[in-house]
Amino acid sequence: MVKLVLVRHGESTANRDNLYTGWSDVPLTAHGVQEAITAGQLIGATGIQFAACHTSLLQRAIVTTDLVLDCLAQNAIPVHKTWRLNERHYGALRGQNKDWTRKVYGVAQVAKWRRSYTTVPPQLATPDDDRRYTRLGYSFEPRAESLEMTLQRLVPYWLDHIGPALIDNQPQLIVAHGSSLRALIKYLEGISDRGIDGVEVPNGQPIVYTLNRQLKIIHKQILK
Amino acid sequence: MVKLVLVRHGESTANRDNLYTGWSDVPLTAHGVQEAITAGQLIGATGIQFAACHTSLLQRAIVTTDLVLDCLAQNAIPVHKTWRLNERHYGALRGQNKDWTRKVYGVAQVAKWRRSYTTVPPQLATPDDDRRYTRLGYSFEPRAESLEMTLQRLVPYWLDHIGPALIDNQPQLIVAHGSSLRALIKYLEGISDRGIDGVEVPNGQPIVYTLNRQLKIIHKQILK
Repeated sequence: MVKLVLVRHGESTANRDNLYTGWSDVPLTAHGVQEAITAGQLIGATGIQFAACHTSLLQRAIVTTDLVLDCLAQNAIPVHKTWRLNERHYGALRGQNKDWTRKVYGVAQVAKWRRSYTTVPPQLATPDDDRRYTRLGYSFEPRAESLEMTLQRLVPYWLDHIGPALIDNQPQLIVAHGSSLRALIKYLEGISDRGIDGVEVPNGQPIVYTLNRQLKIIHKQILK
Repeated sequence: MVKLVLVRHGESTANRDNLYTGWSDVPLTAHGVQEAITAGQLIGATGIQFAACHTSLLQRAIVTTDLVLDCLAQNAIPVHKTWRLNERHYGALRGQNKDWTRKVYGVAQVAKWRRSYTTVPPQLATPDDDRRYTRLGYSFEPRAESLEMTLQRLVPYWLDHIGPALIDNQPQLIVAHGSSLRALIKYLEGISDRGIDGVEVPNGQPIVYTLNRQLKIIHKQILK
């Protein structure tokens, strides 16, 4: 049996301002910093000694990682950063106020964009010109993602890096985002396309899974 | 031509208290946090876009790394942590006050321990029982190091990881320690065993090397 812990980053400025974020690289708020520290303290109380940590290429997750590992006095472990754990790409919606989009596009359409498993938001006209992503070559041009697309690009990283480490009995920490963690939870728990609608991952409340050697879930606990 | 930047961590509690530190894992002081941020701002003004960062397994270097990369808005780059960049191991001297050791052992002996290239300080009776090091196996038992020994264990990391990246034109950042950086500077600049006596690396003043494709130094600048 081995432990896997998921942490959503602390509150970002976009969370605070009720904006779609996706791959926008917004910082934590002061409250978000505190949430990250609280998450670190909650995990610390479990006594888990992690072998490695995985996070996204977005600063709100990276800074949360730094704060959590500092709290745990485990900042010497390897931290692997990958776009595959990035938040779902919200396309042309990013930076928009969620209430404003409800007024313009209607509540039903917004609910679909936000909660449907397969609906893709309006695409970005041009992909991000950011060296984190341009270094992956011209064929890599994410302009918008459904939750399904998020899950599909996350699973290879799980299969190649996180799963094998867990099977080797190495406890792993993942610090990521609301939707990328929803996708991972759907995958891990075998939740249906409809069922994932109702799943929320609050900022800074770590989820502790106990897994067996086949990576089946033996126990799940949300730390508060 | 490619850039290599060296940063010594900000002031630690042991620096402040005039103690030998070595592999003791002491935190930064508030002043040290400020020095790290200043180092980040100084590097930021150069506009260098790093491909990767290398640091030790000690929190004063890791937290300095986090602060510098946050300042640079480059915290998505890979950060590689290795014991090979750890501070020189100060053996049984660690935790001792430097003035106190001068009184007990004499100024000449202390000068030798601190500045001679080959003198090994008194060894630890038992090696560190710390998973960062015990995971390397029973044969890995550092109990004290001369500067020469520090250089010898650092060079394989340079040859395997940092040098090839620089030759591939990838700017690299190294955040490490007073003596591990002295060892690296000795190696890079071809300083003699005697000449390294006089070389000091102040906390938080980045050194920017411009290297050619043979990794010869074209230019060196200390940012203040």
